[in-house]
Amino acid sequence: MAKIPVGILGATGMVGQNYIALLNNHPWFKVCYVAASPRSAGKKYAEAVAGRWQLIDTYAPHVGELVVQDANDVSQAVAAFKRKRCAFVFSALEMGKAETAALEEAYAAAGIPVISNASAHRWTPDVPVLIPEVNPHHVDIIPIQQKARGWKKGFIAVKPNCSIQSYMIPLQALVQEGFLIKRLVVTTMQAVSGAGYPGVPSLDMIDNIVPYIGGEEEKSEKEPLKIFGTIVNGTLKNASMPKISACCNRVPVIDGHTACIYLEFGSKKPSVDEIKKIWAAFKGLPQELKFPMAPEQPIIYREEDNRPQPRKDRDLDKGMAVVIGRLRPCNVFDVRFTALSHNTVRGAAGGGILNAELLKSKGYI
Amino acid sequence: MAKIPVGILGATGMVGQNYIALLNNHPWFKVCYVAASPRSAGKKYAEAVAGRWQLIDTYAPHVGELVVQDANDVSQAVAAFKRKRCAFVFSALEMGKAETAALEEAYAAAGIPVISNASAHRWTPDVPVLIPEVNPHHVDIIPIQQKARGWKKGFIAVKPNCSIQSYMIPLQALVQEGFLIKRLVVTTMQAVSGAGYPGVPSLDMIDNIVPYIGGEEEKSEKEPLKIFGTIVNGTLKNASMPKISACCNRVPVIDGHTACIYLEFGSKKPSVDEIKKIWAAFKGLPQELKFPMAPEQPIIYREEDNRPQPRKDRDLDKGMAVVIGRLRPCNVFDVRFTALSHNTVRGAAGGGILNAELLKSKGYI
Amino acid sequence: MAKIPVGILGATGMVGQNYIALLNNHPWFKVCYVAASPRSAGKKYAEAVAGRWQLIDTYAPHVGELVVQDANDVSQAVAAFKRKRCAFVFSALEMGKAETAALEEAYAAAGIPVISNASAHRWTPDVPVLIPEVNPHHVDIIPIQQKARGWKKGFIAVKPNCSIQSYMIPLQALVQEGFLIKRLVVTTMQAVSGAGYPGVPSLDMIDNIVPYIGGEEEKSEKEPLKIFGTIVNGTLKNASMPKISACCNRVPVIDGHTACIYLEFGSKKPSVDEIKKIWAAFKGLPQELKFPMAPEQPIIYREEDNRPQPRKDRDLDKGMAVVIGRLRPCNVFDVRFTALSHNTVRGAAGGGILNAELLKSKGYI
Amino acid sequence: MAKIPVGILGATGMVGQNYIALLNNHPWFKVCYVAASPRSAGKKYAEAVAGRWQLIDTYAPHVGELVVQDANDVSQAVAAFKRKRCAFVFSALEMGKAETAALEEAYAAAGIPVISNASAHRWTPDVPVLIPEVNPHHVDIIPIQQKARGWKKGFIAVKPNCSIQSYMIPLQALVQEGFLIKRLVVTTMQAVSGAGYPGVPSLDMIDNIVPYIGGEEEKSEKEPLKIFGTIVNGTLKNASMPKISACCNRVPVIDGHTACIYLEFGSKKPSVDEIKKIWAAFKGLPQELKFPMAPEQPIIYREEDNRPQPRKDRDLDKGMAVVIGRLRPCNVFDVRFTALSHNTVRGAAGGGILNAELLKSKGYI
Repeated sequence: MAKIPVGILGATGMVGQNYIALLNNHPWFKVCYVAASPRSAGKKYAEAVAGRWQLIDTYAPHVGELVVQDANDVSQAVAAFKRKRCAFVFSALEMGKAETAALEEAYAAAGIPVISNASAHRWTPDVPVLIPEVNPHHVDIIPIQQKARGWKKGFIAVKPNCSIQSYMIPLQALVQEGFLIKRLVVTTMQAVSGAGYPGVPSLDMIDNIVPYIGGEEEKSEKEPLKIFGTIVNGTLKNASMPKISACCNRVPVIDGHTACIYLEFGSKKPSVDEIKKIWAAFKGLPQELKFPMAPEQPIIYREEDNRPQPRKDRDLDKGMAVVIGRLRPCNVFDVRFTALSHNTVRGAAGGGILNAELLKSKGYI
Repeated sequence: MAKIPVGILGATGMVGQNYIALLNNHPWFKVCYVAASPRSAGKKYAEAVAGRWQLIDTYAPHVGELVVQDANDVSQAVAAFKRKRCAFVFSALEMGKAETAALEEAYAAAGIPVISNASAHRWTPDVPVLIPEVNPHHVDIIPIQQKARGWKKGFIAVKPNCSIQSYMIPLQALVQEGFLIKRLVVTTMQAVSGAGYPGVPSLDMIDNIVPYIGGEEEKSEKEPLKIFGTIVNGTLKNASMPKISACCNRVPVIDGHTACIYLEFGSKKPSVDEIKKIWAAFKGLPQELKFPMAPEQPIIYREEDNRPQPRKDRDLDKGMAVVIGRLRPCNVFDVRFTALSHNTVRGAAGGGILNAELLKSKGYI
Repeated sequence: MAKIPVGILGATGMVGQNYIALLNNHPWFKVCYVAASPRSAGKKYAEAVAGRWQLIDTYAPHVGELVVQDANDVSQAVAAFKRKRCAFVFSALEMGKAETAALEEAYAAAGIPVISNASAHRWTPDVPVLIPEVNPHHVDIIPIQQKARGWKKGFIAVKPNCSIQSYMIPLQALVQEGFLIKRLVVTTMQAVSGAGYPGVPSLDMIDNIVPYIGGEEEKSEKEPLKIFGTIVNGTLKNASMPKISACCNRVPVIDGHTACIYLEFGSKKPSVDEIKKIWAAFKGLPQELKFPMAPEQPIIYREEDNRPQPRKDRDLDKGMAVVIGRLRPCNVFDVRFTALSHNTVRGAAGGGILNAELLKSKGYI
Repeated sequence: MAKIPVGILGATGMVGQNYIALLNNHPWFKVCYVAASPRSAGKKYAEAVAGRWQLIDTYAPHVGELVVQDANDVSQAVAAFKRKRCAFVFSALEMGKAETAALEEAYAAAGIPVISNASAHRWTPDVPVLIPEVNPHHVDIIPIQQKARGWKKGFIAVKPNCSIQSYMIPLQALVQEGFLIKRLVVTTMQAVSGAGYPGVPSLDMIDNIVPYIGGEEEKSEKEPLKIFGTIVNGTLKNASMPKISACCNRVPVIDGHTACIYLEFGSKKPSVDEIKKIWAAFKGLPQELKFPMAPEQPIIYREEDNRPQPRKDRDLDKGMAVVIGRLRPCNVFDVRFTALSHNTVRGAAGGGILNAELLKSKGYI
C-alpha cells in the first residue's frame, strides 16, 4: 500500500515536532505538508526548527526539506493538498482558542479533514473527542457534523487532554464489564513537557513542585463525561457519571503524567483480583484491528509496590500503554491505584495518530 | 531563667542533627548529653558527625565538644543526668521498632522522660501522640501511664508522623468550630529528607517520582484517629472519624511535604469563606502561651493559585506553620485544598521541641 | 545614625527583588524610591510584584507601599530624590546594553550616583568595576570620571559578573602576597537563578546540563584584567595577567556558582599549605572597616574532600563568603581547587550593597 | 552463524544488568551463563533481579530463566562452560579490588577469557586496556600474557574508566594525524548512574553538585597514558604524554558524562577547521570491520553553541558515539571543546561488548 500523504498544522511547535518524529517510518502515513506561523513560513522545515528542535529522535530527511507554509493560508493548503494528494491534517496549532477553532473549521470547510490535538473544539457538540480504545463509535457523529455544516469531505475530530489518559482506558475496561463508576477523586503529578518549550521555568522545578496547572482540572473533570457520552439526536450527550474531582500538580519529570486515583463503584463492585483480570484481558478496537500505533497491551499492570514510575515505565509499548500499579482497597471509596501515561505520546501526538488510524479504518480518510 | 539541660538519643542521625541545630539558641533548653550507637560512642560529637553532618546550619560549639555516649547504656545516662541535672531526652533513635520501644521504656523506667520522634510507641495505648495545637489535653494520660507502669518521673510522649502534619491543624481548626469531618482523601508528595541519609537514591529522583513510601499510608490514615481520640478509663480511645484514604508519593524535593486534600463534612458544612476565616483566626495553646518554637500563625493561607510550593513556602514562620492554598469546592466531596508542612521541622525535630515546650508548661518536665 | 534613603532602578526584576530583600534591616541604607518599566509604573510595589516575587524572604512593609516610578523618567527621580533626600540608586536595570548605559549616564548627569549591577558600563574606561576586597582603590577614578564628564555629585560605579566572584578574592589574596598568577583555566557550573525568571526552561535542567551561557565566558576572561588593573593617566589600564580560559556551564542548581580552577603561578610558587594559610589570614578593607554586608571571613576553606557544595555552602556568612575546597597540586599547572560563590548575593545584589558601603566609607555618597 | 554463548560475572549488579540488556538481540553473542554473589546464587535470574532491575529495557526471556551461579565457584563455571560451549565471560564484578583481581585471574587460569569492566587489572602490566578505536593493536599483549602466566585459552582484557571515554577517541583522531598533545586540562560533570544503585543519595543531587568522585581523577589522568602506550619487551610501556589534570564532579544527570577539555598541542598545531575535518573523517577498526556494537560515526560534532547536552545527545548512535561541540581557540592553551559520552554504554557494558567484538575479530575468542 502506498503511504497516505498527510499535513501538519503547527509543525514547528513542540506537539508538531512530536507528530513529525512519531510519523518517521509510519507504515500508513507520510508527512508531505507542514504549516506553521507566518514567522516560519517560507523556510525549509530543517531551517525553521534549527535550534528549536526539542526531541531526541529527529525528523525524517524528506521532512527537513519541506518548505513551511503559512498555516493561516487555507487556500494555499487546498492547492497543495490537491497537488500532493494529501488526505488530512493533524492540527497541533498553539494559537488562542477562538483562532484555532476558526482555523480548524476553515480547513474542514475547505474539504480537509482535521484531526486535532488542540482543545478548541473539544466542547463543540458535534465534534467527537476520541480515545480509540474507549469510544470508537463516536466517529458516527462525523457524517452528522458534515451534513449540518455543509462540509463534504472535511470534518473535525479531536483527542482529549493528556491528563485523563491514565484513567480513561482503565475505567472503560471496568465499565464495559458492567462495573459503573459513580465517583472518582484524582490527583495528578504531571510532567513539564506538557507545558511545551520554554514552558515551566527551572526555578519552579528544582527542589519544588507547583500545585496548579491552569485549566487542567476542569478538563480532567469534564472531558471524560463527553467521552463516555452517547450520540442522541445528532449530538453528543454527556454521561452523568462519574463525578470527578481533580487536583493537578506540576512535578520535575520530563515526560509521563502520574495519577493517584480513588474510585467509588455503583452497587456492583469488583474485587481487586477481578479488576486485575479485567485489565489484563482488555483489548480495544485498536488492538483487534492491529493499528500500527496501538499498544499491544493497552493496560500494563505492575505488581511491584513502587511502580509505575515515570522515568522507568513511560516508554512501555511505544509510550502508548497505560501502566498501573498499587491497586488496593480504599478506606473511603472502593479501590485506589496509581496510573501513568506518556503525555507527549499517548497524551498528544501518539493519541492523534491513533485517532487517524481509527478514522482511516472506518473509511473517513 | 537558667536553661534546662536536655539529652538527645540518636544524636548523630539526621533527625538527631535536626534537634541539635534547632536547639541552638533555644531560650529554654540546652543540649548537654548526646548518645548514639556504640560505633560513635566515645568520640566527641564534632568528630562523630564529621563528614556526616547533613544540615546547612551547624551545631553549637559546646555540643561539638560533648563526648557521645552509647545510647544503649541507660545506667550511664542516669548517672550523667544526675551529674548534669538533665531534665529529659529527645529520642531520635533510628533502630528497629522493638528495640526502640524497649530502650525508650528503659529510659522512662530509669526516671528520664522521653519525648520521642520515633514511631515505636505511637500505638501504645497509654502513650500520647501530641500535636500541641490539636490535642494538648492528651498530656493528661501521662500520670496514668506513670502509675500503671510504676514510673516516677519518667514517661514517654511521642509525636505523629510527618505526613499528617499538613492536615491535622487545619482539620482541628474546623472541628473545634463544630464542622465534623466524615471522610478525607489525601495524596501526599513527600520530600526526600523524610527518608534520612543516604535515603532515596538519586537514580529514583531525577526525572522521576516514586509512588510508594513503606508504611506511610497506614500512618497517615490511622494516627489522626488517635490524636482526635479521647481519654477513656485511663486509655486513649480512637476517634471513629474521619475515614482517611491516603496515597503517599516521593518527589524530588529536599524539604516539605505537600498534600492534596479532599474533605467531606458532616451535615454542617462551612463555606469556603467561612473556612478561610476559621483558619486565619485559629490559635492553639502554643500560640496563646507563646511557646518559643510555636509559629505565630499556625495556618498561613496563600491566595495565589499556584501556592503553596515547597521550596518557597516551607520555611515560613521557622518551618512550623502549615501553609495552605487552593481551597475550593470539590465535585465529589465538599471542599479540597493543598497544604504544605516542613517535614524535618514541624514534622520531626521542631514538632518534638514544641511537645517538650508543652510538657514543660504543663509541669511534666 | 539616621539611615540613608536609597533608590532601586529595575526594582521589580529578580535582581531588584534581591536588592530589596537584602536591604531589609540594613543598618545604613533604607529603600525609599523604586523605579521600573512603564508597565509597573504607578502601581504600589506590592501590587507590581504580586505573583512575580521569586524570593523566599519578602520585602519590608514600607517598600510594598512605595509607588513604582518609571525608571526612564530621570527628572521625576531628581525631584523625588530631593524630596526624600535619597543619596544614590542601585541599578538593577535589565534592558538592552545601550539603553542601560544611556539611562545610567542620565541619572549620573542629573546628580544621582549610580551603583550598578548591569554590565553596560563595565568596559567604560573611567568606570570602576569594584570588588571591595580586591580593588577598593579603584574608587579613585570617580573624581576623574566626574570631572571629565562635568558631573558634580553623580557618578557610575559597577560590579563585575557573578561568574568570577569565586576566584577573584582568592587570587587577590595570593597576588598581594607576591605570588603572581600567569595563567588560569576555569570551568564553571552555574546556577539557574543567574538567568533570572523565567530564565532557563525546566526541559533543559531536568536530567541535563547546558554547556553554554551566552557572553559569560568572555566576561569571565576579561573582567578580571580590569579589576587587577591600575589607574594610569585618568583611565583604568588592564592588567596583562592572568591569561584566563573559561568554559561556563549551566547546571540544575538554584543558587551558587561552582568553579574548578587550575592555576599557573609565576616563578614564585606557594605550596598548598602556604596558600591555605594565606587564604585563612586574608582580610580586605570591608573586613577591616567592618562593613555591614561584609563577610567576617571572606574566604572559607573546607577540608572535606567533597566540598564546597552549592546547596550546603552557598549561604555561609550571609552568602558573601567564597567557599573553597580540594586545593591540591595540579599535573599541568601548579595548583587546582574548587570554589563556590552565591551568585545572587555576592555575585549580584549583595556585591552591589558592599560596593555602596565602600563608596559611603570613602565619602562618595 | 550460530551465536557464541557467553557468561556474565556480576550479572545482577547494575553493570551486569547493562550487559544483559545490551546483549538482547546481539548478532554474535548470547548470554548463557550468569553468576553473582552467593546471595543470589541458586535463584532464577528473573527472581534474583526482581525489584532490583534498574533499566528501562528488560532482559531477554531466556536470561530470566537462567539459574544464577556463585561467581566465586570457578570449577562450576568451567563445567558449565564446557556443557554450554561458552566462549568467554564479561566481568562486571563489583567486589573489592584485590578479590576481583584474584577471581578474574582464576577464571583466566581455568581457561575462560575474561573481558572485564572492573578496574582491578587496569594497571597489571601485561593486561591490555582497550578502546577499539584507539589501541586495537594492544591485543598483541595477550599471547605474551598467556605465555608468561602459563594460561592456554584464558586471558584478561579490560576497558578503561568511563570518565575518559569522551576525550580518548577525539585525541586519537588528532594524534594519528600527527598532532601531538602535550597537556590537557579536563573538568568532568558525571552522571549518577556511574555510581551504581543505590549510589548517590538524592539529598546530594537535588539543587546540588558534588565536586568529588573518589579515585576518578587519578584514573582520568593515568589510564590514557597506558592506552596511548606501546608494547615493549612484552609489557605495556606508558606514553609520556599528554600530561593530564582532571577535576571530576557529580551532577544531577541520569546518564552521560560531559567534559570540558582544554588542549595544548606540540609544535604542530591544527586549526579549528582542521580538527573538525579530522574528527568528521575519523574511522577506527570497529567502523572498518563494521562491528555490531560500533557506532557508525565514532565522533559526532554538533555546531549548535549549546550542545552537547547529556539528555539530548547521549543516545546518539546507540550510545556509542562521542558527541562534541563548542570547539574554539583557548586563551591559555590551543583549543578547548566540550565532549559527551554515555557512561553506562560506551563507558561500561557497550565498551566491553565492543572489546569482545574486537577480540573475536582478532581470533582470541
